[in-house]
Amino acid sequence: VSPPEVEALLFDVFGTVVDWRTSIARELEAFWAPRGIERDWDAMARAWRSRYQPAMEAVRTGRRPFAKLDLLHRENLLGMLEEFGLPGLAEAELDELNRAWHRLDPWPDSAPGLTRLRRRYILAPCSNGNVRLMVDVARHGGLPWDTVLGAEAAGAYKPQPQAYLGSIAFLDLPAGACMMVAAHNGDLAAARAVGLRTAFVPRPHEHGPGQTKDLAPEGPWDVVAPDFEALATALGC
Amino acid sequence: VSPPEVEALLFDVFGTVVDWRTSIARELEAFWAPRGIERDWDAMARAWRSRYQPAMEAVRTGRRPFAKLDLLHRENLLGMLEEFGLPGLAEAELDELNRAWHRLDPWPDSAPGLTRLRRRYILAPCSNGNVRLMVDVARHGGLPWDTVLGAEAAGAYKPQPQAYLGSIAFLDLPAGACMMVAAHNGDLAAARAVGLRTAFVPRPHEHGPGQTKDLAPEGPWDVVAPDFEALATALGC
Repeated sequence: VSPPEVEALLFDVFGTVVDWRTSIARELEAFWAPRGIERDWDAMARAWRSRYQPAMEAVRTGRRPFAKLDLLHRENLLGMLEEFGLPGLAEAELDELNRAWHRLDPWPDSAPGLTRLRRRYILAPCSNGNVRLMVDVARHGGLPWDTVLGAEAAGAYKPQPQAYLGSIAFLDLPAGACMMVAAHNGDLAAARAVGLRTAFVPRPHEHGPGQTKDLAPEGPWDVVAPDFEALATALGC
Repeated sequence: VSPPEVEALLFDVFGTVVDWRTSIARELEAFWAPRGIERDWDAMARAWRSRYQPAMEAVRTGRRPFAKLDLLHRENLLGMLEEFGLPGLAEAELDELNRAWHRLDPWPDSAPGLTRLRRRYILAPCSNGNVRLMVDVARHGGLPWDTVLGAEAAGAYKPQPQAYLGSIAFLDLPAGACMMVAAHNGDLAAARAVGLRTAFVPRPHEHGPGQTKDLAPEGPWDVVAPDFEALATALGC
């Protein structure tokens, strides 16, 4: 890819920019341990996350109107707590626990890499996370976005075409001037199908030590880089 | 106002954060002078801007569907050039000149004041400018927004209620936890009518030495500050 032709970089966030698994495990422990509860926090984090795709699928298929990810996360939390046999919580406690997703830690290379990339490119998340969630995660982790795009702005969940196309419409750029950066081959395949350039940054520990998915590029991605610092170098920053 | 209750500050941009008049006059001169044209650049800038409200009014009244401000600016440019008896331009030249609005300089206190305010508050423009225009102005002037809200995100032009309410909906905040910051009493009156807190920062030179409007607060605004540094101090930053 010749970098000057790309004007904006769009980022997947959960897994690609931030380490949701260990962050959520830590938040679950911080919430429940003082209440005298012990569980496998990492398994609990993965169980909460496993309800993510089915919840969005109800929106994608039109079984329910668009709902912010914060709301889906909260519904999924109720199911996950029941699955793990945990006691009921007051509404305010559920809200507090659900905001764990607003405090996800970036991978160590994310903020420094983004800071370099921003010198040359417009940077925006194109995540399924809603705007306020993305704003809070960015403030928590020092992520220098130019603006927040993605599912809520576009009114559609990835990998639906409208999630990408609705996002880049706000930038007044043709798809070919935008590059999707993700740790997930499926996300890149969907972005490429509507004309975006693609960059694969593998995150082999996203799902834990036994991860078998998305360890290597599985498509003709324009750039493959081991982390965001290397991505910045590859893109001339 | 008691600052901890406010979580987000929304900003008018043209006039409040940036000095559109002298910036546009400079851009007009830089474009036309090398073409051997001399005019009153300040008058020309004001003439271009004077077509702004009527153009948005066509959207507000439903005479045309929502159109980005970049498009309205470009239509207005054609009328303004004719008004000043200027020669016709190629499409690419019109696009180039229209992008003058993407390079507006902030007032000297804007970036340092916003940088202080951002420590405590979520900051977003709530401007009639479209997202890409706001992104470019922020990159040009070093304005540390958390995300871009406003007319394009909300699908309505200020002072319509939906421009404010649609913006704060992305932040999942009640209106009373948001404060509109503007140099224009009318903008603040509209924001206050839908429940936002208000801060008035006068910009007595926005329209030039003969400015008669918006020199003083004309409503029960929560905060009045002479510039953004003083606003940061007033809001505990």
